[in-house]
Amino acid sequence: MAHTTVRQRVVRIALDGRWAVRPDTLAVEEPLEIRLDGVPFTVTMRTPGHDLDLALGFLVAEGVLGGPEDVVSARHCPDAARDADGRPTHNVVTVDLAPGVEPPQGARYRLVSSACGVCGTASIDTVRTRSRHDLAADEVRIDAAVLAGLPARMREAQAVFERTGGLHAAALFSPAGDLVCLREDVGRHNAVDKVVGWAFAAGRLPLRGHVLQVSGRASFELVQKAWMAGCPVLAAVSAPSSLAVELAREAGMTLVGFSRGDHFSVYSGEPRITA
Amino acid sequence: MAHTTVRQRVVRIALDGRWAVRPDTLAVEEPLEIRLDGVPFTVTMRTPGHDLDLALGFLVAEGVLGGPEDVVSARHCPDAARDADGRPTHNVVTVDLAPGVEPPQGARYRLVSSACGVCGTASIDTVRTRSRHDLAADEVRIDAAVLAGLPARMREAQAVFERTGGLHAAALFSPAGDLVCLREDVGRHNAVDKVVGWAFAAGRLPLRGHVLQVSGRASFELVQKAWMAGCPVLAAVSAPSSLAVELAREAGMTLVGFSRGDHFSVYSGEPRITA
Repeated sequence: MAHTTVRQRVVRIALDGRWAVRPDTLAVEEPLEIRLDGVPFTVTMRTPGHDLDLALGFLVAEGVLGGPEDVVSARHCPDAARDADGRPTHNVVTVDLAPGVEPPQGARYRLVSSACGVCGTASIDTVRTRSRHDLAADEVRIDAAVLAGLPARMREAQAVFERTGGLHAAALFSPAGDLVCLREDVGRHNAVDKVVGWAFAAGRLPLRGHVLQVSGRASFELVQKAWMAGCPVLAAVSAPSSLAVELAREAGMTLVGFSRGDHFSVYSGEPRITA
Repeated sequence: MAHTTVRQRVVRIALDGRWAVRPDTLAVEEPLEIRLDGVPFTVTMRTPGHDLDLALGFLVAEGVLGGPEDVVSARHCPDAARDADGRPTHNVVTVDLAPGVEPPQGARYRLVSSACGVCGTASIDTVRTRSRHDLAADEVRIDAAVLAGLPARMREAQAVFERTGGLHAAALFSPAGDLVCLREDVGRHNAVDKVVGWAFAAGRLPLRGHVLQVSGRASFELVQKAWMAGCPVLAAVSAPSSLAVELAREAGMTLVGFSRGDHFSVYSGEPRITA
């Protein structure tokens, strides 16, 4: 079983003169190599755990996978990588595609960092992956008080967060505010990929009528991932970027930022929010 | 001149029943295509401004550039991309390499998100870019009180941050706590690249005897970028990851986390810190 945290010696220095050596808990960050039909496709820096969901969700966001019928199997390759002591790591997975499902064209091998989600293309024209989902047709409604309470609900469910302070989270909620799926990672986009991959494997895509809550800011890449998964509402604890707002409006997505318990800001699609 | 912020209409909803439509200031996020000798090399999502420094710093971190003699010129390509109204954008730059300086081998074109810094390689074996700098030999010392005060000094200098809440920062300080260079971006790694690129262009690499303060967490990629720039001390406001600590120890770098004004934690290289 993969470890999501590790204990390290740390020197804590306080300005009142107290220096203390003590153990500290850190979030694990390790590379995950994702292969398609056994061929290396990408490497992402991630927190171990839910690796297959991460790979599947990443491939949904890339437009490679649409539904469960597109995948024959997804599995770890325990013999593909070994640590310094010769033990197999859990840092390589492969997704075997169904006949007729094409991997992306051209050389798109790359390393994706723990904070990266839309890597792999060469020029500006290819930044956007086109979604097959028409979010504008999603007539879900969510109460403002429910929406404002989602960050707190997510934090309550984040057992690991309390120990490291270093993990981002993504959580899928029903419009009534019930938690459907929660995932954590050192990378924001990985947490979202893990949620989407879980939904993919469960046959629950597209995420019609759901709300995706994320712990940090809302970037272009997160809006794109939510759109590719068919999720009509994306809520972030912090600020969205200009391009996140632009893409959300184009997608017909409700985009919420600065969700702080007693207030929040709506940058796109406010008719879905009710008093 | 590129804009780093943009005004957008936003609906602010408070749970006491006050809904207000008002303008809000957002951090701009746009793609930047970096070309080498005119050939597309990578695309990164970034906040416009200091684009040439960003490109140069990115190439230092990739191991392509070592010193100013490696570059013939770095410039925008105003005719390479146009917006929907046909006006030139400032979203493409090219770096012309000196004869004998080789671009990285193989197909490494890729899109790097606003939160990504080590993208581009195919397999786990190539995650680490080897630095030419021996940080262990850097005998700089920094007072604990000075170090603890750097986040506040950085925030004071962040004019844009006050307006958007959406920008990460990286700041280079002298051991006495004097600000040398500050850069902001929607992406943490971009802010660091901009600082390193500034230093590169100014002939100030390696960053011996300096402290690099960053606003967020310390990931593997940020430690790697600091190492490639020869900076012996990296301080983050939030948590480091396991691999960040591991790499810092390997590099002989002082790595500080949870720097919160009256205390901080040292994960590597504490002999450089004095009471």
